[in-house]
Amino acid sequence: MKSITAIYPGSFDPVTNGHLDLIERGAKMFDRLIVAVLRNLDKAPLFSLDERVEMLTEVTRPWPNVEVDVFGGLLVDYAQRRKASVILRGIRAVSDYEYELQMAMMNRKLEPNLETVFMMPAVAYSYLSSRVVREIAQLGGPVQGLVPPAVEQRLRAKVF
Amino acid sequence: MKSITAIYPGSFDPVTNGHLDLIERGAKMFDRLIVAVLRNLDKAPLFSLDERVEMLTEVTRPWPNVEVDVFGGLLVDYAQRRKASVILRGIRAVSDYEYELQMAMMNRKLEPNLETVFMMPAVAYSYLSSRVVREIAQLGGPVQGLVPPAVEQRLRAKVF
Amino acid sequence: MKSITAIYPGSFDPVTNGHLDLIERGAKMFDRLIVAVLRNLDKAPLFSLDERVEMLTEVTRPWPNVEVDVFGGLLVDYAQRRKASVILRGIRAVSDYEYELQMAMMNRKLEPNLETVFMMPAVAYSYLSSRVVREIAQLGGPVQGLVPPAVEQRLRAKVF
Amino acid sequence: MKSITAIYPGSFDPVTNGHLDLIERGAKMFDRLIVAVLRNLDKAPLFSLDERVEMLTEVTRPWPNVEVDVFGGLLVDYAQRRKASVILRGIRAVSDYEYELQMAMMNRKLEPNLETVFMMPAVAYSYLSSRVVREIAQLGGPVQGLVPPAVEQRLRAKVF
Amino acid sequence: MKSITAIYPGSFDPVTNGHLDLIERGAKMFDRLIVAVLRNLDKAPLFSLDERVEMLTEVTRPWPNVEVDVFGGLLVDYAQRRKASVILRGIRAVSDYEYELQMAMMNRKLEPNLETVFMMPAVAYSYLSSRVVREIAQLGGPVQGLVPPAVEQRLRAKVF
Amino acid sequence: MKSITAIYPGSFDPVTNGHLDLIERGAKMFDRLIVAVLRNLDKAPLFSLDERVEMLTEVTRPWPNVEVDVFGGLLVDYAQRRKASVILRGIRAVSDYEYELQMAMMNRKLEPNLETVFMMPAVAYSYLSSRVVREIAQLGGPVQGLVPPAVEQRLRAKVF
Repeated sequence: MKSITAIYPGSFDPVTNGHLDLIERGAKMFDRLIVAVLRNLDKAPLFSLDERVEMLTEVTRPWPNVEVDVFGGLLVDYAQRRKASVILRGIRAVSDYEYELQMAMMNRKLEPNLETVFMMPAVAYSYLSSRVVREIAQLGGPVQGLVPPAVEQRLRAKVF
Repeated sequence: MKSITAIYPGSFDPVTNGHLDLIERGAKMFDRLIVAVLRNLDKAPLFSLDERVEMLTEVTRPWPNVEVDVFGGLLVDYAQRRKASVILRGIRAVSDYEYELQMAMMNRKLEPNLETVFMMPAVAYSYLSSRVVREIAQLGGPVQGLVPPAVEQRLRAKVF
Repeated sequence: MKSITAIYPGSFDPVTNGHLDLIERGAKMFDRLIVAVLRNLDKAPLFSLDERVEMLTEVTRPWPNVEVDVFGGLLVDYAQRRKASVILRGIRAVSDYEYELQMAMMNRKLEPNLETVFMMPAVAYSYLSSRVVREIAQLGGPVQGLVPPAVEQRLRAKVF
Repeated sequence: MKSITAIYPGSFDPVTNGHLDLIERGAKMFDRLIVAVLRNLDKAPLFSLDERVEMLTEVTRPWPNVEVDVFGGLLVDYAQRRKASVILRGIRAVSDYEYELQMAMMNRKLEPNLETVFMMPAVAYSYLSSRVVREIAQLGGPVQGLVPPAVEQRLRAKVF
Repeated sequence: MKSITAIYPGSFDPVTNGHLDLIERGAKMFDRLIVAVLRNLDKAPLFSLDERVEMLTEVTRPWPNVEVDVFGGLLVDYAQRRKASVILRGIRAVSDYEYELQMAMMNRKLEPNLETVFMMPAVAYSYLSSRVVREIAQLGGPVQGLVPPAVEQRLRAKVF
Repeated sequence: MKSITAIYPGSFDPVTNGHLDLIERGAKMFDRLIVAVLRNLDKAPLFSLDERVEMLTEVTRPWPNVEVDVFGGLLVDYAQRRKASVILRGIRAVSDYEYELQMAMMNRKLEPNLETVFMMPAVAYSYLSSRVVREIAQLGGPVQGLVPPAVEQRLRAKVF
């Protein structure tokens, strides 16, 4: 039998119910799923890297084959270090899709043995993104149902 | 370790190098991959169901975990009979993508435990489809490099 | 105050829960909403024109300002006869959208005072279409939750 | 008869002939149309909030049922305060459309009774945006026909 | 100086003002432009091949470097016979675009020296297609402004 | 015979193999092709304007009818000064395409005699962009095969 390690990379600023839905699907599909938070020095995130890792660790506790990690540099190099053969990505809208295909083709060019696999979040989360969640929270709107409860509390603490 | 059976459904009239590329990728990813030819009574195919199965069987011989089969009725029912938990689909263009997402969402509605997974064919095959191959062959054009050699011969025999 | 009559044209073969959702939204928005079934002589529908009108009449009973009618010829001519100033259309996917805009622009060219207005069905119905419903029913699959109960019964009777 | 108040939200930096075309269509459709300028503290606009409101007030004078206002915070909260049941949005290109649907679905999640309605500007304005107008003006190009005359004068004064 | 022959292939059933607009642009761009009507045996056209060629010949008379011709078989073979190095195509909507790119990539695979060039019709014709024109005419609607006057007369004669 | 000058505008930060592929195609199509680097004061480029011009000059040496230049202000004004009647643009993905059409329509509005022509890069470069190249180089990844050798050396010198 195959034993496949997949990486689900992203900023997760913060993790949403859409991400969580995809993590659950990925955890069923692959033997090991590494949720890898991108260490991006350029941007000013709402949550620090440590906070994002903490939240992800907490909300992914139900799946023993899911691990949370941090990565910098090229994704293909990180995948090699982690002996992962699959990149997992969620797809929703067309603009998403275009960019996702472009990145997937570039990663394949850099490392032909690394396969990108796309899965769909539940249709109820098809409009959800971290950016939309941040905007709503910063305007004082309700984020219940958009993020896990643990993230909801931290969001409220962060923006008030 | 997980043991996942995936179904790659389609008409395969005829199988192209793009399909074959995806089959190769799927054979690496899943423990068992069933290439399932849709028995579609409405359409007038170029190749009969038997011919399509024969060609697929021949060209998928290199992968021992790939099986060729025929199905009718609902894909979700067929997946259940075959104990498959994954539908594999290739994606290329936007119009593809829209229709693929629609079918995937409908299949999930019919059977929530059946997951649809999308993979990309090699970029060189991103313009390739069975329909384009049939059109070129019927106009007397060269299909070398578009389909496996075994299919090329049959195509030539079919259209002349 | 304005009194606006809107037309919601379509084939409705059969009416789905997505259509019904849009009818409900349109009934709130406009003073009068005419659900207009296209008399299309070319196609072979699953349900006859009379059956489609019957089903629509039954399922739109809750909204007193909704009327079911049949039309042929140019939509802009029909709108003028019915003193309607608005065409209501639902939008979901990209391919939809392109075609919808094309038709809307053409109708505006034919009759500048007729405005096309687009509304979204509930996200849960974003994958739903009459064609998908027909296919599932014809393959013996469950259409519960996809169409109103009255349509479900007739679909079952029709395909068995 | 229904009495519907709609909100047409945006940055309007500056208002273009495309916006004005949509305002005219909206003013015909709804009993009351509030053109609501977003108070966005983050961005550095070309025109101040006051200037944008002044220009909008001037160019919407022909329609007595159109009001110009300013809003901050969540759009759904503002709509509730203004007793508006409809958000009016213009749609042109695909990327527009994707983002527009995402925002509309999110607003519906936050407030199910607030409906988003999409209308098309005249085809002649299908390429027009405030950003394109600003770029042309800043490069010394002619903006005649792209914005109302009153805006044209202010643009010229602003960029020289 | 270069001397480039371009082919503008299509069904032209019938030629519309959008086609004519593109022909005018192509006639300025290329030394010689061949408007090539596809001999398609499968479809039942509204106008016969002869009628379509006659109408095209009449409406392209103003441009001496435009020639009307008929072709069958592979477009790349026809281009070689006619010593053309360019295929001219118009692009409007997204679905168009996807299909056009697919055909262009396939033609390049069949003949690398044949280049496909895309140009835009005037924005006023961005919603126009032969199919829409046929539908309007068959429903008794006005096609003035959509097709050249000579085509308008023939359309009226054809559908009554 | 016609003598057509075309402009291929862009940032070229840096020039990629995709750009070079399009330049080669354009050089065959037009009598004279001006690769025009946009002087954009706002952005912080990776390579200075001089460096970008130097690299382009070096890699376009094989085509005697290609000239490298710098421009600021409106593209339509620059085209007029250079007696160019064509803007050449490459197209790949959908989002590209939308924006490209919008710019082309706006440029046509500003100068009706200036035609925008779209060509496709080789399918192998369909995922390539300057931004992706910069990102890979800055993360220490290999850019071999993505840019010409001369650019590869400078990229390495720049990012280490």
